[in-house]
Formats: sequence, C-alpha cells, structure tokens
Amino acid sequence: MSLTYRDAGVNIARAEDALSRVKERIARTRRPEVIGDVGQFGGLFASPGAGTVLVATTDGVGTKLEIARLLDRHEVVGADLVHHCVNDALAMGAEPLFFLDYFATSKIDPAVFSRVVGAMADACARFGTALLGGETAEMPGMYAPDTYDLAGFLVGAVDREKILGPHRVREGDALVGIPSTGLHTNGYSLAREICARRAMHERSASLLDVLLAPRQELGGVTLGVSLLTVHRPYLAEFRALREVADIHSIAHITGGGWEGNLPRALPDGTAARIDRESWEVPAVFTLLARLGDLEEIEQFDTWNMGIGLVVAIAADGLGAALAAVPGAVALGRVVPHSAGRRVIFG
Amino acid sequence: MSLTYRDAGVNIARAEDALSRVKERIARTRRPEVIGDVGQFGGLFASPGAGTVLVATTDGVGTKLEIARLLDRHEVVGADLVHHCVNDALAMGAEPLFFLDYFATSKIDPAVFSRVVGAMADACARFGTALLGGETAEMPGMYAPDTYDLAGFLVGAVDREKILGPHRVREGDALVGIPSTGLHTNGYSLAREICARRAMHERSASLLDVLLAPRQELGGVTLGVSLLTVHRPYLAEFRALREVADIHSIAHITGGGWEGNLPRALPDGTAARIDRESWEVPAVFTLLARLGDLEEIEQFDTWNMGIGLVVAIAADGLGAALAAVPGAVALGRVVPHSAGRRVIFG
Repeated sequence: MSLTYRDAGVNIARAEDALSRVKERIARTRRPEVIGDVGQFGGLFASPGAGTVLVATTDGVGTKLEIARLLDRHEVVGADLVHHCVNDALAMGAEPLFFLDYFATSKIDPAVFSRVVGAMADACARFGTALLGGETAEMPGMYAPDTYDLAGFLVGAVDREKILGPHRVREGDALVGIPSTGLHTNGYSLAREICARRAMHERSASLLDVLLAPRQELGGVTLGVSLLTVHRPYLAEFRALREVADIHSIAHITGGGWEGNLPRALPDGTAARIDRESWEVPAVFTLLARLGDLEEIEQFDTWNMGIGLVVAIAADGLGAALAAVPGAVALGRVVPHSAGRRVIFG
Repeated sequence: MSLTYRDAGVNIARAEDALSRVKERIARTRRPEVIGDVGQFGGLFASPGAGTVLVATTDGVGTKLEIARLLDRHEVVGADLVHHCVNDALAMGAEPLFFLDYFATSKIDPAVFSRVVGAMADACARFGTALLGGETAEMPGMYAPDTYDLAGFLVGAVDREKILGPHRVREGDALVGIPSTGLHTNGYSLAREICARRAMHERSASLLDVLLAPRQELGGVTLGVSLLTVHRPYLAEFRALREVADIHSIAHITGGGWEGNLPRALPDGTAARIDRESWEVPAVFTLLARLGDLEEIEQFDTWNMGIGLVVAIAADGLGAALAAVPGAVALGRVVPHSAGRRVIFG
C-alpha cells in the first residue's frame, strides 16, 4: 500500500478545519489599513506615514502552557500571548497595529486550536489590532501528545518624537508601578518546580492535587486558578497616563524579573530606588516563596512580585499619574548608580 | 536549601551568553531605518512612506529541524527560516525590511543557538534585512533533549500599486517556474516516515543509516545531504524578473504542495495547466517516492517536486523572463476552470 502525507501524521485538512472555526473571530479584528483577504502568502497592511516608527516585538508564554493544558484553560494563553506583545510595544510608546501567531504541535486538535487562536483573535479585537496572519505547524513527534507551543509577533507604531526609552529619563524621575494580575507569563518553570516538589513531599499527591487544593492564603482559591490569571494588558493605563504625565520610559516586568527588566528603561549611571513598602506583594507570590523556600532576591529576579509595569515620569506629574490609574503606586525614584545591582530596594 | 530559578532549569545567564556569541553578526544586519540598540522591549524601524504597504509573514521550518539535529547541521535551518519568510513576502511583491525570530528549547545550548541564530543573521545580512529582535525561550520539559523549535517573522514593503496577486492574473498568462533546491522546508514528516520505514525494513538499519547511505540515484550523495540543502531564496530572481516582465502573481510552493499553493495566486474561475514535461523532477523526489511507494498526486500535494516558485506573467514577457533567470522554465498557462482540481497536469 502506498504511503501518504496523512500516514506520516500530517493532515492539511485538519489544519484547515481548525482555522475555519475561528475565521469569523479573526475577521472581526480587521481594521481599515488591512488590504485583501486572509490566505495570501503575506498579510497586507497600509503603512503609517514616514514620520512614524514601527515597533516590532515577539514573545511566547513559556511553560504557563503546561499549566493551562493540565487545567484545560487554553483561552488564557491565547490572550496572554497578545497581551504580552501589546505591553512590550507600549513600553516603547507604541499603539498596536497588527499581530501574527505561530502555533506548533505534533497533531492539531481543532477544538484546542480554535480555543487558543480564538482567544488571540478576541484579544486583538479588544485592542483594535489586526490579526494579520499566522502559521499552524503540525510536526509529528516534535511535541509530546496534547502539548503545543505558541509565539506571537506584533507590530505597533509610535511618532518618532514620542519614542520612550532611557534617553528621556533623568535622575529624580518618579517611578510609578501598576499592579500585575499574578505571574503573567514569566517564572512558571520555577512555580511548576515548586508545585512538583510539593507533590513529592506530600504522600501520594500529584501535581494536579497541588494545583487544585484550595489555599487559605489565597482566600480559598487554588494555586491553579491563581497561576492562570490572564497576563494583564496595560494599554488603557498607558493611554490614561500619557494624557496626564510626561512619560519618559516604561519597563514591562517579564522574564528576569525586576533586575532583568527595570534597568532596560534606565540610562547608564542611574539606578531605581524602590520602596518595598509602597505595595503589598500578592499572596500567590508569598505562598509560592514559602512552599519553595525561596530567597527574596530570587523571587524578585524571577517574578514581577505584583507590579507588572514600571513607568518613569517627570516627578511633577506623579500626583496626576496616580490619580489617572486606579491602583497605581509611587514606587520610588531614579537615583545615581555607582556599582552593583541597579534596582535597589529600600 | 532554598530553590532557585536555575534549579528549575531556567538559566537567564545561559541565554545571555548564547546571544552574546552572535551579537556582532546581528549588528551587521543593521540598516539606516533601525533606531536604537538591541535589548529594548521592541525593535524600532522607521516606517516607509504612506504610499507603501507592509507585508507580514510568519513561518517555521517544520520537522526538517529533526534531520538537521540528527546530522548536526544547525546552520541550514537558520538560513531556511529567513529564506522561507523572504520568499513569502516577495510572493506579494515585497522587498524585505526586517526579521524577528523565536527560538524555543528545553535547555539552551549556546553553541547550537549561536549556529542557528548566527545563520539567520547572515541570511538577513545577505538580503539587506534587519534582524530586529527575537525571543529565546527556555522551557524545561517542553521539548525533548537537544530539540528546539523556530518561528520567523518578517515584514517587507511594497508600493501599493505593485502588490501582486490573483487580481492581476488573466487567462492566457504564462506560468514561469523557478527550480527549487530540494524539499525546501516542507514535507519532511513524509520524508522522515519514508526513511524510518526503510530503516525498519532493512535489517538492523537505523534512521541515521538510511540518511547516511550514499545513493546511486543521487550521484553518490546521501539522502541526508539532499534533505539538508538550504531552502532556496528567490529574491535575486524576483528582482531580475520584474525588470523584464509584467509579474502578475507569484506562488511559493510550500506546505500543501502545488494544489495547496498555486491556486492562491490564481483568480476564481481559472486553473493552471502545467506541462509535466517542462522540467525534470529532481532525483531526491523520485527516490523518496520509490522508497515510500507514493502515488504521484500525493507527491505533488506534499512537495514542490523541483519547482519552488511559480510566477504568473503577461504572456508576451515569457521570452524575456526565461532569459533573465537561468534555469527558469515555461511551465504552462492560466486557463479557465470549471470544477475539480485547479492545477491540471498535462
């Protein structure tokens, strides 16, 4: 009997079926700049004017994928992917224009695919971002059964004279923190390791048992639920802030935690002095830290610890900034830096 | 003893070490539109003018990754990823502007990473494309040891009135084929399955044995070498063609083979009549087909069969087109279509 591509585990019809289930939700992300239909070799988007700068970002969601899969919450990671990219773009001062996704798995499950990519489309629609294209890769044997990986690509735009970054920041600038909704999409390998070790310690407990146990520290909520809150998108808060304050730079606290990200928003020779009392670290972090017996520095070098976005602004705008964004806190100031770590907790 | 992120398998310093090894090669991809340095939250690229249309594509390289890994040829898939994206963009008429990559693995091997991403950077440099950013994801347990996945994202630009596509194509248009260098990056799961079955049939042969055996049909070359030729980039040929002919549309023959791609470049109501005698199918395809006992239709629905790009042009430009691109062949014509398949081999 002759062999077919389908025998080899690749079924193009299955990929097309999966895509057809989300076609309408993708169509709702269309905006006036989009030209032509889906299914071309490349997505077409009318360029903004020559005074504008394109901002391109790419992100994944890391091993949060594994927890979403274990708990059958695939929509979460779809939204996460878009939000992560939107936040990275606004950290440069940009509004999002369009998004593309990469979905890779060993064997496409059209139901799971449509939940993930449908959630991406809905997230794009909420931010007025066109879902302009994507690649669905069926790679037999590359991924463990039922697992998949995601990558997102987003292009945004900012007026050339409004690009944010360290070049705008001065000593004395105020640092405003905006709360996160949990771990967002970073540090999940550490969280999973903590849960897995916990499962080993507790007789006959599985990782799932650890994730599904109601936790007093979390007000009766489970770790699973806490770990699967959606990565908070900060576009509305960014827009509100720029109306009332002179934003200089923004750090999106992702992989590498505070020390890995906040210095990216600071000019050489400066550091961030952060008042640890200015916000309360959410219980999911303290619970994980306790379960894993983590040093505090390790926590801050891995997780956002409750602050997902740090915005450096001219100090005289601090009051207006705090008033414009509910929950925002005055974290500290930009100070001179001599040596060592550039995020100094005091 | 307290747990660290490193204990959980994620080592940010390892990722930074890996990236530092290719920093200079990435720097060489810089072009005048790029603003600022690597390491920002998003890459910055001055927008082309408002009359221009951005073309965005995303691609992977599929399970060619597995063969590249088995034979320690990581540079190949790095170049492949860029070439695949460049070809998809030029299929819309676009010149490449910038590229971003996603590299995901369980544990970063800086040597392998620098070979893959270094090859991407070199490919970008050859096409004057800025390598504007990337995401390196270390996801313990997500990927089998030593395996990794790649996704590429490219933005190009085309003048609005020069966008290629089915809307330009008319019955009677000539179809010009440009040779491929092999399977490019599609149909590798089928090729691998064929090799794996062959290994089972041959007593005590491994997949590696099948890949490393010199093949008479390939002039003494191995299947491994043939399967790892780089996906041919067609940018030079595209530029040469547009100088001498009125290009209407282009099909990049990738996943789904001829029937899966050529109709994407044709308007409704038309089909492609292809003269099977106009080119010789390369030996790697006929060898794989023989080893796998494949029906011919299955081959053409999976692989490019020796033609990687099909260009529809105004018929009066055929002679000039063939003269401008060495190796190009007159494949056939655009004809009316009533029902059934839209690629008709005669």
